[in-house]
Amino acid sequence: MKEYLKHHEWQIIEEGLDPHYNKISESVFSIGNGRMGQRANFEEEYSGETLRGSYVAGVYYPDKTRVGWWKNGYPEYFAKVLNAPNWIGIHVSIDNQKLDLAKCKVEDFKRVLDMRTGLLSRSFAATLGDGKKVRVESKRFCSMAHGEVGAIRYAITPLNFSAKGLLSIYVDADVVNKDSNYDEKFWEEVYKDASEGRAVVTAQTKKTNFHVTTGMRYHIETDGKKANADRINTELREKFAGNVIQVALQEGKETVVYKYAAILSSENHPKDQLVTAANKVLDEAFHKGFDALFDEHAKVWQHKWEESDITIEGDIAAQQGIRFNIFQLMQTYTGEDERLNIGPKGFTGEKYGGSTYWDTEAYCLPFYLSTAEPKVARNLLVYRYKHLGKAIENAKKLGFKDGAAFYPFVTMNGEECHNEWEITFEEIHRTSAMAYAIRDYIEYTGDKNYFTEYGLEVLIGIARYWSQRVNWSAEKSKYVILGVTGPNEYENNVNNNWYTNYLGAWTLRFAQQAVDYVKNNNLNRYNEIVSKTSFREKEETDRWKEIVEKMYYPVDEKRNIILQQDGFMDKEILRVSELKKEDRPLNQKWSWDRILRSCFIKQADVLQGIYLFEDDFDIETIRRNYDFYEPLTVHESSLSPCVHVILASKLGYKSSAYELYLRTARLDLDDYNNDTEEGCHITSMAGTWMSVVKGFGGMRVRDGKLHFNPFIPDQWKSYSFRIEFRGRVLKIKVSKDGVETKLESGEPLVIDVKGEDVQLRK
Amino acid sequence: MKEYLKHHEWQIIEEGLDPHYNKISESVFSIGNGRMGQRANFEEEYSGETLRGSYVAGVYYPDKTRVGWWKNGYPEYFAKVLNAPNWIGIHVSIDNQKLDLAKCKVEDFKRVLDMRTGLLSRSFAATLGDGKKVRVESKRFCSMAHGEVGAIRYAITPLNFSAKGLLSIYVDADVVNKDSNYDEKFWEEVYKDASEGRAVVTAQTKKTNFHVTTGMRYHIETDGKKANADRINTELREKFAGNVIQVALQEGKETVVYKYAAILSSENHPKDQLVTAANKVLDEAFHKGFDALFDEHAKVWQHKWEESDITIEGDIAAQQGIRFNIFQLMQTYTGEDERLNIGPKGFTGEKYGGSTYWDTEAYCLPFYLSTAEPKVARNLLVYRYKHLGKAIENAKKLGFKDGAAFYPFVTMNGEECHNEWEITFEEIHRTSAMAYAIRDYIEYTGDKNYFTEYGLEVLIGIARYWSQRVNWSAEKSKYVILGVTGPNEYENNVNNNWYTNYLGAWTLRFAQQAVDYVKNNNLNRYNEIVSKTSFREKEETDRWKEIVEKMYYPVDEKRNIILQQDGFMDKEILRVSELKKEDRPLNQKWSWDRILRSCFIKQADVLQGIYLFEDDFDIETIRRNYDFYEPLTVHESSLSPCVHVILASKLGYKSSAYELYLRTARLDLDDYNNDTEEGCHITSMAGTWMSVVKGFGGMRVRDGKLHFNPFIPDQWKSYSFRIEFRGRVLKIKVSKDGVETKLESGEPLVIDVKGEDVQLRK
Repeated sequence: MKEYLKHHEWQIIEEGLDPHYNKISESVFSIGNGRMGQRANFEEEYSGETLRGSYVAGVYYPDKTRVGWWKNGYPEYFAKVLNAPNWIGIHVSIDNQKLDLAKCKVEDFKRVLDMRTGLLSRSFAATLGDGKKVRVESKRFCSMAHGEVGAIRYAITPLNFSAKGLLSIYVDADVVNKDSNYDEKFWEEVYKDASEGRAVVTAQTKKTNFHVTTGMRYHIETDGKKANADRINTELREKFAGNVIQVALQEGKETVVYKYAAILSSENHPKDQLVTAANKVLDEAFHKGFDALFDEHAKVWQHKWEESDITIEGDIAAQQGIRFNIFQLMQTYTGEDERLNIGPKGFTGEKYGGSTYWDTEAYCLPFYLSTAEPKVARNLLVYRYKHLGKAIENAKKLGFKDGAAFYPFVTMNGEECHNEWEITFEEIHRTSAMAYAIRDYIEYTGDKNYFTEYGLEVLIGIARYWSQRVNWSAEKSKYVILGVTGPNEYENNVNNNWYTNYLGAWTLRFAQQAVDYVKNNNLNRYNEIVSKTSFREKEETDRWKEIVEKMYYPVDEKRNIILQQDGFMDKEILRVSELKKEDRPLNQKWSWDRILRSCFIKQADVLQGIYLFEDDFDIETIRRNYDFYEPLTVHESSLSPCVHVILASKLGYKSSAYELYLRTARLDLDDYNNDTEEGCHITSMAGTWMSVVKGFGGMRVRDGKLHFNPFIPDQWKSYSFRIEFRGRVLKIKVSKDGVETKLESGEPLVIDVKGEDVQLRK
Repeated sequence: MKEYLKHHEWQIIEEGLDPHYNKISESVFSIGNGRMGQRANFEEEYSGETLRGSYVAGVYYPDKTRVGWWKNGYPEYFAKVLNAPNWIGIHVSIDNQKLDLAKCKVEDFKRVLDMRTGLLSRSFAATLGDGKKVRVESKRFCSMAHGEVGAIRYAITPLNFSAKGLLSIYVDADVVNKDSNYDEKFWEEVYKDASEGRAVVTAQTKKTNFHVTTGMRYHIETDGKKANADRINTELREKFAGNVIQVALQEGKETVVYKYAAILSSENHPKDQLVTAANKVLDEAFHKGFDALFDEHAKVWQHKWEESDITIEGDIAAQQGIRFNIFQLMQTYTGEDERLNIGPKGFTGEKYGGSTYWDTEAYCLPFYLSTAEPKVARNLLVYRYKHLGKAIENAKKLGFKDGAAFYPFVTMNGEECHNEWEITFEEIHRTSAMAYAIRDYIEYTGDKNYFTEYGLEVLIGIARYWSQRVNWSAEKSKYVILGVTGPNEYENNVNNNWYTNYLGAWTLRFAQQAVDYVKNNNLNRYNEIVSKTSFREKEETDRWKEIVEKMYYPVDEKRNIILQQDGFMDKEILRVSELKKEDRPLNQKWSWDRILRSCFIKQADVLQGIYLFEDDFDIETIRRNYDFYEPLTVHESSLSPCVHVILASKLGYKSSAYELYLRTARLDLDDYNNDTEEGCHITSMAGTWMSVVKGFGGMRVRDGKLHFNPFIPDQWKSYSFRIEFRGRVLKIKVSKDGVETKLESGEPLVIDVKGEDVQLRK
């Protein structure tokens, strides 16, 4: 844990440059706009420790997997989010001395991320080898208003000299992925061009053949007036295009480079029109100018905050933490493009590759449902609908048939691209996370038409998977599900993981509901789906019912609790509090077999199930299970604590809820797990939001009605959050004195606050 | 399955060169002498498909492992048997045309392995591009009498021309391992020298720094007289030394190259004396000459066959098969060097790396016990004794303490070098295979002193492992063993694998016996061991007893059988006969999860336990378990059928026993599994031997007495085998008419044949 960042309500602030923290800051100060993102690398050269990273949504590379012992059924490739061409580069040299913060004396270094406006600023004074001292201020943003535009204002002021400055302003596709399995470069040049004031490079990815065009225009001002360059050379190298400009830097006078970048991908433009389109984007940005572009950008952020802000009074660190989580989620996914999704590191790093895990459905969806228009969450569902064909292929590869759909554990295009048998093949509950997301969406929005349009097809596929995946145990006279890994990945290849069995059977019931709904409401569409999916309604739903009726659920009768899986009570039951400090985290200290045979739980498993199907259990059942499982849970997944916060809040375990909350809220800001340099934990940030809104705020939707049952942690004066719900924006404020509810926009509605109806109108 | 090899009692014969079979033949026709081995590669150049392989016992390289998802506790390296310097090379070119069987017309190709004398011969007529036709006959052997000597007789006869021939005769350390993880070369040059008639190269392995010196001398004769070379050039390149000789080849006259090679390793010589020693070995071999060397070599083989031959009358294919198995075992391990062991591919290929698996103790030991002097088997045990320190380190890495010993799954030097958590960490029964081997050895030889000298220390270490590895199940009020993989590797991470639990508890009882024996027979040595191992006798053996008393064994009460592991009966119980042909072999057709949740068994598991502890079970228990488990077993390990043969024989299931036997006897000769090109299945060959002797022959040792209970498969006229037993050599011959027993050497003894005492004397 590190605490080098300053606390501030709206800003992330780093003062002083500590090279050891640079890669952490590069992650934390990342900016993005849902279409692209950029780590907080320096514009100028930097020979110190850095992880250069620029990312374009949807552009990936299927890197050949590296695996020790190949198992039949493994995919050949692991899809990686690509490090995309560099658009931020502005190299500076003064009298043949490069400006490189690893090699000069740096004073007054400050890096600020303004979350309210999505602006990254950096300033410092650097003394070069010969004593020349220069002040630099840079600002940049990825435009939220124009998804293909990035803009930089880079200002240089000589403090004790006048001299010739050489500026290299460029775009560069000669970039590498640090996580490349075979040290390969993934980009090839297609086109490049540079002329005075502009440059463009089109590069294509190997194998996947995505084209990305990265272009730039710039202008230079001194003291607010166009600067006259002494000389301008164009520079063209393999995958690289730029200008080298010689300018006169005058003591005390600010020379400013305004650099406008266009980042366009063949996902959004025909390949042969990419360059033309990029030039158009560039010209518009250039003529608009930095300030006007920034105003447009800031307005979008203003709107986003109006939809989604959470305020916390009395605890600036907590306020900063929750806003940082919301900020990152907002800039990772805007919901405008149904082909995109939420990678575990968003645009802040390469780690984990792939773009999509079940994290999206299980953790992120509720955030977008409540903080944006319904389209945003809906597009996340449609993303999976579009991958249905691939999910059916994935299932086929594992021996399933007749349209059974097995959604991938990690994917870019719907195809499984993860290679670890105990996860890839066995962590099967994820396929039903897609079903649960449909329920979540419909329950929240009331948009049952989603069943008709997309949902039913997906549900039939998933239901077919389960109906083939169970087997009849003659021993138990029940249907069982053997050889799975549950959400708790510290158990592998277990039999009858309760969460998996419960979710599987629930999916069959839910699919039946969808069948009934569509059949009763749109028979034509129903018949269309029956024909498209070769659905044999009677035969298939009879089997679903049979499985639902006879599904086996492991229980511990003595303790009257749910059993995580068969045989769990054969373990030595210890408590996390009995572990020695040097044993933690288990996954870095214990060998895998020791973890597996221990009772310790990586992340909520039975409790995850109870959280998802809360209304199926009475409060005492929830309490018994929570009291049993929470002390065994090490929360070594960032996705775990939020579920426990929500249940602890429900059970009135206030201090426990707050304590668990703290683990997630500043996870990256304080680099709790010593891994933020690889990127921020984006998907778990939605869990932090849930901890406040569903945990402390007690928000639920039941039968179309919003419920709140809030409490306030002792450490806070008040907190408030905004919720979008069926065309309204509500604000809920919780203080020591009570709960204030306010309808900020939309039609009147009745909500339930602590068991009582409250009528809201504007 | 392929059947291109001719049937013959003593020889393996290939007629005609089919390039598709060349790599298979290279494996099958391999020769070795326990110190080194050589695949049946051609002496001359060959540009067709080939796997060049030469191996020196004990010389390995720790190749950096390649693994997809690293687990804490994995070893960094995987020890590989190295492809060692090439000593066979004789390149031939005639009028600038290379002799390369992939590029000329080949007639009368014949490859013969004479198993009686360990001689590889090859002959062919080749027509070069310009029509020149030449006949070549080559013979070679790895001397069984002089472990560091290889000899080649390579004869060339022009059939339709006279011309200048250019012969390149060399040794070459510039070789690669096909299974290198990062395409690295593992050898570096230390020294090389060439002069007229001789050449030598010393190379060292990276990281492990083994030095291997490979030298050669040669002479050339035409028509039985020393040939005069027109020109001799020495040739020296990186890691390569040789001579290039120009000789006049005369139509119809045979020119013969006699090449003598010396292969010496720093395992047996000081590094600085390797070259001197190699030259001495070379000179001796050279002066002895090919024929005299061969006579000495053949005599050793004659003696080996006298000890170990099995004859089968009435079935030449079976006769050839069993002799091939014995031949390979004999040339893989001679028992002369306690630092060596038996790799799964012996000296016939690279696959699997490492040198030592539990195969040695579980499958190979009985063969060497019965077919060689006791020292040979004893050295296999001492090998593990010498690795005890490493086994204790291996255990420590996985969280065990106080001298617990966990023997590796794969090793070269005692250190674990395998990376697959479900095997490396969880297939724990292998550590007790070491204990069982001690029992096997003592039971067979009567040498109880082994306890005192080595056994007890090893047994204390292994017992300590088990006493820490079990845990108390409050649920069952029993000790349980969680998270293991049994011998049946088609189950991973299961709880209470019966075989593992049984073997674990047995080990504790056996360790107690060892403690008692040594304490009662050699108190001084006992005290020495107590002090060396910090053995707290009372406390530790009390715990052993407690565990033995309260060990949990899964059973199926309904069927009155042993349960392979907890939960096994939840599976859908099918029979192998219900599988479709296209589903086999499962490990190539089904994804891993499907295999895991199926009932199908890769290799004997419960039955392996019953086989090892046969006398603990009454015949009806054995029958019930066999009848249940055999139909579920796919035998996708070559180590599986032999156990079933032995039990089926005992149960009187004659045709079933014979059928299972057939799967192993010609496994490599007929390339059953399509994988012989990677090397022969050496360790499972011992299982084939067991099938005959312990299966059909029904041989057992009980309380120091030999028992036989033979039957003869309907397909055979008779079979016979020889057994070494406590200083005697016995011959047992079984025919339709009955059993003949004969004492060939040694003191009189009483044996039990079909329940009756038979007095044997010479």
